This record gives sequence, C-alpha cells and structure tokens, in this order.
Amino acid sequence: MIKAGILGGGQLGRMLLQEAANYPVEVSVMEKDPSCPSAKLCHHFITGDITNYDDVIRFGEGLDVITIEIENVNVEALFELEKRGCRIIPKPQALRTIKNKIFQKEFYTEHQIPTASYKVLQNREELKNNIDFLPAVHKLATGGYDGKGVQIIKKQEDIPLGFDAPAVLEKMISIEKEIAIIVAVAENGKTAIYPPVEMFFDPVLNLLDLQLCPASIPEKTLWKAEAIALTVARKLDSPGIFAIEMFVDREGNVWVNETAPRVHNSGHHTIEAHYSSQFDMLWRIILNYPLGNTSMIMSSMMVNLLGAEGYAGETQYEGLEEILSIPDVFVHLYGKTDTKPGRKMGHATIISNEKQELIHQANKIKSTLRIKGNKTI
Amino acid sequence: MIKAGILGGGQLGRMLLQEAANYPVEVSVMEKDPSCPSAKLCHHFITGDITNYDDVIRFGEGLDVITIEIENVNVEALFELEKRGCRIIPKPQALRTIKNKIFQKEFYTEHQIPTASYKVLQNREELKNNIDFLPAVHKLATGGYDGKGVQIIKKQEDIPLGFDAPAVLEKMISIEKEIAIIVAVAENGKTAIYPPVEMFFDPVLNLLDLQLCPASIPEKTLWKAEAIALTVARKLDSPGIFAIEMFVDREGNVWVNETAPRVHNSGHHTIEAHYSSQFDMLWRIILNYPLGNTSMIMSSMMVNLLGAEGYAGETQYEGLEEILSIPDVFVHLYGKTDTKPGRKMGHATIISNEKQELIHQANKIKSTLRIKGNKTI
Repeated sequence: MIKAGILGGGQLGRMLLQEAANYPVEVSVMEKDPSCPSAKLCHHFITGDITNYDDVIRFGEGLDVITIEIENVNVEALFELEKRGCRIIPKPQALRTIKNKIFQKEFYTEHQIPTASYKVLQNREELKNNIDFLPAVHKLATGGYDGKGVQIIKKQEDIPLGFDAPAVLEKMISIEKEIAIIVAVAENGKTAIYPPVEMFFDPVLNLLDLQLCPASIPEKTLWKAEAIALTVARKLDSPGIFAIEMFVDREGNVWVNETAPRVHNSGHHTIEAHYSSQFDMLWRIILNYPLGNTSMIMSSMMVNLLGAEGYAGETQYEGLEEILSIPDVFVHLYGKTDTKPGRKMGHATIISNEKQELIHQANKIKSTLRIKGNKTI
Repeated sequence: MIKAGILGGGQLGRMLLQEAANYPVEVSVMEKDPSCPSAKLCHHFITGDITNYDDVIRFGEGLDVITIEIENVNVEALFELEKRGCRIIPKPQALRTIKNKIFQKEFYTEHQIPTASYKVLQNREELKNNIDFLPAVHKLATGGYDGKGVQIIKKQEDIPLGFDAPAVLEKMISIEKEIAIIVAVAENGKTAIYPPVEMFFDPVLNLLDLQLCPASIPEKTLWKAEAIALTVARKLDSPGIFAIEMFVDREGNVWVNETAPRVHNSGHHTIEAHYSSQFDMLWRIILNYPLGNTSMIMSSMMVNLLGAEGYAGETQYEGLEEILSIPDVFVHLYGKTDTKPGRKMGHATIISNEKQELIHQANKIKSTLRIKGNKTI
C-alpha cells in the first residue's frame, strides 16, 4: 500500500482523509496541534512543525509521496526529500514560485499570463514613492493566509496600514466578478478542468463567503478564463490540484489574482455537486490513477460557516437543526472544538438546477446558523 | 461533543466514519482486529471482542450512545449499558428480536407482517419429520452472516446439508424479484423511507452482487412494499436504520425475507445517489438531528467488488485503472490488505438516469476488475 503524507491538518486535510478511505493508501499527517481536524482520521498522526526543516525531513522519511494542504511549509525540506526519491505533489519548485507573492507575480509576467500590473516593494518606506500607483493592493510576499497579509491602500493616508516587509503592490482593477477555476494535473501531464465558480467575499473579513457554480459569465469570458487557468497550471510544470483565482473586469478581461497549489476553499462544492471532487481528484493524482470526471451533477452554491463575531471558546451551534432540515443542503462541520470570529468552522453546499433555489437557501443558511463560543469577547 | 461508539470495525463502520467527519462527534470503535477497515478513522480504537460481555461493558463506559455495524454483538451487555443510561441505537430489545432468526420470524407473525410460512426446528433430526414442507430454506437461528448459515433443502437427499442446531425452516417462495427498503427511525418516532432497490444475487456465493435503484416494480407492489417496510420498522419500536429485505412473488405479493437493524449493503448507493446517505442518516439519528432527505439525485446501480475465486493473501487490483476511468462510476475500496474468494473488498456505484447505461457500466466493472491475492489457493 502506498504511504502518503499530508503536511497540515486543517479542514482541507480532513476532507482529503474522508476521501482517502475510498482508496488503498496509508496516510500520515503532520501538524503542530494534536487536536486539529485531521488528527483522528489518519493512519499516523505526527505532531510537528510543518515550517521546520528537521520536522518535515523526519516526517518524509519512509513516505512514498507527500502533499500539502497549506502553502506555509518548509520548501527546502521538500526539495531535499524530492532529491531522496520521495514524490512531492505539488513539486517544491512550483510551491516555491507560488508561496512567495513576488515570485508568483514574476511567474505570471514571465509567461504572459494576464495579471494586474504591480511593483515589488521591500518595505513601507517604498510605498511612499509609489503614490501615483494608488489605489492599489499591498500583499505580503510571504506568510499571508485567509485574507491576512492583504491590505488595500487607496490613498496616501492609508500608507501606514501597509506592511513593512517585502511585498507586492498591485494596481487595483475595477472588478466585475471574482471567479476561480480548479485544474488537476496528473504526473503524466494530463489535465482536467472544473467549471468556474463565482466567489462573493465578506468585505470586512476578506474571507470567501458564498460561491456559485457555474459562474454566470459570458461564454467568451469562460473561454478566456479556462485558457488562462490551464496555462497557469501547465507552466507551473507540476502534478497537483491548482486553484486559479481570477478577476473579471467590466470589459470582460480576465486577470489572474492568485493561485493555490492545493485543494482549495473554492472547490468544496465539488464533493457533492461533481462526479470527482477535488479531494478525490488529488488522491487519483497521488496514486497515479486516471484523472476523475470534473462534470457537474447539478449547479451548486457553497456557504462558508464562520465563527460568529463577538464569541470565542467552546463551539456551540445555533440554528443547526434548521439548516439540516433543508432538503438540498449538505452540511460539513470541521469538528473544531474552539471558535473565534471569522474562523472557518464548516461549510454547507446547496445543489439544485434552479439558481433562485440556490440563492434562497444560501441566504437562509446565512441568516439562520450562528456558530458561537462559550465566551463573549 | 457527543461521545459515540460503534461495535464492529468493518467496511460499514468505515463508511460511517467517513460521514462522521461532517459532524461534531467523537467516535470510538471496538473490533478484535486492529488492522480492520475502521481502525484508523476514529478518535479511539479499542481492541476487543464485541461478542464478549465484559469487553462491550468496558467499551460502553463513558460513551453517550452506541450503535452497531454488525448484529453479532453481546446484547446482554447492551441491555446493561442501556440501564446505566447509555443510548443504544438500535435498542437492545429490537436487536435481540432480529439477531435470532426464530424470534425474527415470530415477530413478523405476531404483527401480521407477510413472511414465508415456517417451522422452528431444534436440530437436523427434526428436518426429517418435515419432508412434506420441502422445498424450503434452512436458516440458522443465530450466527449466520453474508450468506453463511443459510442452506436450501430442496428434497429429502439434501437433509444432511441442513444445520444441526436451532433454525428456521422456511417454505420456498417462487421469487420474481428480491427488493430491499431502508427505513430511518428517529428517536422521536419520525420515519424516512428510501426508494426500494432491486437486488441480484450471486447464486454460488449467495452474496449481494448487483443492485438497482429504484427497483423496477409496479406502483401497486411499491405501495405494498413501503407499507410493509414501515410496519416492520415501527413495530420494532426503536430508533435506527433498518434494511428490510423482501421477496416479490409472481402474483405481486410481497413477503419479508429478513431485516437488518443497521446500515446495510443494500444502501451503499445512497452515498452518491441520494441527498442523505444511510450513513449520514444514522449520524442524524445518533446526534438527534432532523432526519435527512432520502430522495434520489439519480438512479443508480451498485456492484459489490468481491475477492476473486482462487486467490488469497495480499490484495492486488487488476483493471482498477479502467473502472476509475468510467465517468459516472464511484469506486470505494475498503482498504483490506488481505483478500479471499468472495470477500467484500469494495463496491462501485454508477449513477445515471439511463437504465441501459447503469447495466452497461455494471457489466463492464464486473468483467474488468479482478481483486486477487498474491497466493493461488
């Protein structure tokens, strides 16, 4: 039986493990927190720091293949493990490109992939020399995650909000829609592409909030977006799952925002709404099986279930019974024992071929379910 | 978080655990074999004998609720744990009725539930006094499983094949079809019923081989079957999942064959083909959530993937890539490291609204996939 490892033990790992149980594979997980969502669903849980070189090397010894569920891992260790013969999905080379937002932007430029124009800045001081570039988005080169490490700088007065560290300053695009496409790349280079999803963000938390599949975009925009997503995935030259987030502007132009080299929040709906989910697909890639079928079974909407504002501590669900009674809703709770405002505690997917039904039930879920902690903060 | 226990660690437990990860529940599993399919997917795995009183009591201490994935458990221990305040799903009372084929038949008779006429025999000797009752089916009162403990006695010469132990001798019915209906019963008494499936058996192994959902039966037969299934579930007076297997004879009469008080092979297709799968449904019952939606998303066919004749030992899959390439097929392999002839190694579900497509792909799967061991026997 193939011995596979996952670096990171959050909800993405948990959903990967749920699917792993359909295949003959022995899975190890490494994560710092032994109470993380993945700890109790794998053959071997190893407590360790995925950003630490020695921990990752120790984890990789004896494994046939390693994947990630978060970019923030020690890439040098993965290069070393690759040298020793362990398959790494995605390849450390691709991961290094994506992990650093500066490298990522340079990669798009190098391959003529449309992306917002940008400047590379080393510190906050350099922001001051680029006032004519505003309004812009300041993105930390490394360490950003789930909306953190991203700051909108509209005008000179916002400059103190910027990061005093290497970062990309990206020209603001007049966004009509945000979409994402997931591309699967097999080790033999074959690709499979999922239909695009349309993303609606929470403007305060900058967190993915709602998501519709398929995105309502004109056919011409779809063609562009698919061509761009496939180019990104191919040029990264690595097997894996790649989630390519894109902006569509008012003129119908498509711009790559960023890419994740792993299973992604924008693919959660694929569990119920598509034949092969992104999680199933990654196992197919890892185990060198044929790629799965990305077709839709039905249209879908996905709602992130976030920790409510003002609460922390032991998780309590309010309104859960009501949303479990909606006939076309699938609820996934990640088993996190503690909540905090904006924490991703679960998601719900609605499947229906009626768009009005999707929107109606999504709103019902958002207005009904509250995930609170036992402490007010 | 509710602490739940599953007695038994086979593939049914494994599929229950895959679904448990969608809910806030801490799951323990007890099974003799620490390499069983469920061992690595639960919070706590306890090595123990589920037929042993002390082991089951020890397992139950500290749990809020216990369910089973096989009937062959120590019921006396469950009665004791129930007395101590642990919820048992299904209730020990219902389990005791079903576990013993004699009690089960008497239960049907008591509640005027149509079932083949029968005699209760204590040993092989008594078979000889019932030659005028042949052809009949001899079923061991206890301990039968997956086709074992059932023997067809057509004529006097077959009597030596009968069991020398308490058993039921059941008059043979001229069967037109075998169907099964799964009924979910919540603790508050509410029920939900899945559409009937039509089962096709392997005549040699007497093992469920293929299964179509929905069964192709006339509406009138459907009404009868649903009414009977609901009566069985209600009269058992217990929350849980109940799989009621029935015969349809040439006159369209419906007869209960037997009932399983747990998730069942005849419900595997519900994972992909229905909104709430039987596994999801059992967690809803266990956690006192509302019952799920039993509606079909699409018609389906389920194929059991059995260990090939003539092989044992370390599992090897032949033709797996080919069946993983079929666009509307979902493959579940149970991760059993060793195979033997007829062992349930996995299943595949085809979903399609075209019956011809279901049959075509089921035949392809059956003719393509071979699960062999590394030893010929």
